[in-house]
Amino acid sequence: MNYESFFRAQLDGLRREGRYRVFADIERQAGSFPRAIRHDAGRAREVTVWCSNDYLGMGQHPKVLAAMHAALDRYGAGAGGTRNISGTNHEHVLLERDLADLHGTESALLFNSGYMSNWATLSTLASRMPGCVIVSDEMNHASMIEGMRHSRAERRLFRHNDVADLRRVLAELPPDAPKLVAFESVYSMDGDIAPIAAICDVADEFGAMTYCDEVHATGLYGARGGGITERDGVAHRVTVIEGTLAKAFGVIGGYIAGSTAMCDFVRSFASGFIFSTALPPAVAAGARAAINHLKQSSAEREGLQERARTLRRRLDAIQVPHLDNPSHIVPVMVYDPVQCKAISDILLDHYGVYVQPINYPTVPRGTERLRITPGPVHSDADMDHLVASLEAVWSQFSLRRAA
Amino acid sequence: MNYESFFRAQLDGLRREGRYRVFADIERQAGSFPRAIRHDAGRAREVTVWCSNDYLGMGQHPKVLAAMHAALDRYGAGAGGTRNISGTNHEHVLLERDLADLHGTESALLFNSGYMSNWATLSTLASRMPGCVIVSDEMNHASMIEGMRHSRAERRLFRHNDVADLRRVLAELPPDAPKLVAFESVYSMDGDIAPIAAICDVADEFGAMTYCDEVHATGLYGARGGGITERDGVAHRVTVIEGTLAKAFGVIGGYIAGSTAMCDFVRSFASGFIFSTALPPAVAAGARAAINHLKQSSAEREGLQERARTLRRRLDAIQVPHLDNPSHIVPVMVYDPVQCKAISDILLDHYGVYVQPINYPTVPRGTERLRITPGPVHSDADMDHLVASLEAVWSQFSLRRAA
Repeated sequence: MNYESFFRAQLDGLRREGRYRVFADIERQAGSFPRAIRHDAGRAREVTVWCSNDYLGMGQHPKVLAAMHAALDRYGAGAGGTRNISGTNHEHVLLERDLADLHGTESALLFNSGYMSNWATLSTLASRMPGCVIVSDEMNHASMIEGMRHSRAERRLFRHNDVADLRRVLAELPPDAPKLVAFESVYSMDGDIAPIAAICDVADEFGAMTYCDEVHATGLYGARGGGITERDGVAHRVTVIEGTLAKAFGVIGGYIAGSTAMCDFVRSFASGFIFSTALPPAVAAGARAAINHLKQSSAEREGLQERARTLRRRLDAIQVPHLDNPSHIVPVMVYDPVQCKAISDILLDHYGVYVQPINYPTVPRGTERLRITPGPVHSDADMDHLVASLEAVWSQFSLRRAA
Repeated sequence: MNYESFFRAQLDGLRREGRYRVFADIERQAGSFPRAIRHDAGRAREVTVWCSNDYLGMGQHPKVLAAMHAALDRYGAGAGGTRNISGTNHEHVLLERDLADLHGTESALLFNSGYMSNWATLSTLASRMPGCVIVSDEMNHASMIEGMRHSRAERRLFRHNDVADLRRVLAELPPDAPKLVAFESVYSMDGDIAPIAAICDVADEFGAMTYCDEVHATGLYGARGGGITERDGVAHRVTVIEGTLAKAFGVIGGYIAGSTAMCDFVRSFASGFIFSTALPPAVAAGARAAINHLKQSSAEREGLQERARTLRRRLDAIQVPHLDNPSHIVPVMVYDPVQCKAISDILLDHYGVYVQPINYPTVPRGTERLRITPGPVHSDADMDHLVASLEAVWSQFSLRRAA
């Protein structure tokens, strides 16, 4: 077995399928985000980022940066250990309290990433409850799928956001089996939103736990940024709310929120939690500053929605097709993987507009897209430039127009 | 199914077995580490940390903190996306180059934690190579075990650090099957060190890849901190070197280093890499500062070894038993889980000495211990106090003495 040849052949396969990823090497500019410097072949040029998940620009908010600077000076760089072995900093304790307060839950538990919180929590819950069956929305995120897979519990899919199909699946399961209904609130690639209350109704009817991934919603929806579960008044009905500190809150990390017993159970049994060094105290402090600011300020959320509405209106005006959805995510549809990559390259190289192409397997073949994430950091002039650039590229490539 | 009752019952089980973990809530004090403030029942008291994995105190090094402050001002708080979708900051690119340089490899690849780097890399390599068999040291870390388990590849154990047994296992496998020999260099709980050259000899003989977890060695061993693989001159013989930025380098994150094709393969196929938000640029900048300082300075490494030697000598003088090993980790043996927890509590509450008890399942039953990690940050006075405290507690509890 020649391992090097094997690796190279696999990578060549990706290149042939147009799926080989080249990372744009950029420097975000604190204070002037969405501006960034892009490094490419020895050149450094300014670009405007239109595909970040720092949806509200909190990654450059003065309160967040001040909290991180202060925490660095006070506690130093790293946590120094796992949560159990000298790594629990007081900032972690306070952050978990702030998160529980955000969601109105008894407790919360921090992880190093949203991926880890989904993977570790789902795998722990489903593997530790004998006979547990996971009932999973078919569009759930990779981190959730890997967590379910790792649990080796039985997994049944229901059609995306389809409560009737969820009911059908639950009705087929043994009444006394532990059941876990797993779904997201805002789906990242289509920007559609789950009918959480109706899902909870059906889950309650069949005695199932509910697990809701709110990573594209916390900070962004609800009067205090508690997500769709807050907006819809159903946070108390969901067994596990999972969120991230890396998107609306602008830093990094993941968490779950729920009952004290549930959080303590995951804390006590999840290998991925137990054996990971804790997040740096400065990260926790920055996240706290973002969360607590967004509990009191809705200006950023309103700006986000206004920018998304404005972009949609302007795309309609030039007949550039986009998926209609009730969220802040604006998927501009290209419907072809090669063109999707090509126009993304041209937008970046010629127009200084950075939007990563989204191709299979992240989205189904034939639905390739530019996933645009407008936000309050994007000015009217930024949007004029984006729309003019899209119009030029759509004409140049004779891409499909909206009706 | 009453889920809350189930969680509570499981937690009660842990309490009955003495395995329920209570996290010490502390504030490390940058500039005066190992000193920390401990929060307990509304009181805040100073303690000295003797169980941190910030082995060299780099978490408070002025170069590290300055680099992080500068990066915060320049780039902001978070990376803003996954590596593929706007989250690759130039600091990540430079850090991966610095890591490749540290190990003398072609490439390196960053992860959000050491746990994630082990889990994602092992699961990706073993699941993507058809018929791959993992041959694993029986004492490997939980993150490695979970990665192997997730791959669903066949796994065979060899006796801990036993090259003859490794040979026996490899000889039983089909000659043409892809094979991956996974082990650690410095084992965390016993502090013993793998015979890497001999392992590579046998792996080469049977055409196996090698995977070496160096998380308790990078920064600490080798002329430039490249770990045991550097010290032993075998870095070029190991297929995958895995390390952490959270221990000797004082921040957070994990990585692998090896050939360009191997790193690119993992980059392209590992779900846990692809779908995670990238580390904050400031974390990458801090890690770079620590790595590059320790490439040039051996004073911290020498201080670490001197402190470990001194502590061992002083423990011998008072006949407090400890595991002899060739590393910087000093496991002080208690041999009983209840006493181990009890004396740890007394050391913390009455003596201000913080050493977390290590009980089953982290170590085998009957080998319960205090895992002490002395380092250059601990003064002679700190050590006087530690040794006097241990002597007092050993007498109070009539604990087993060394011969």
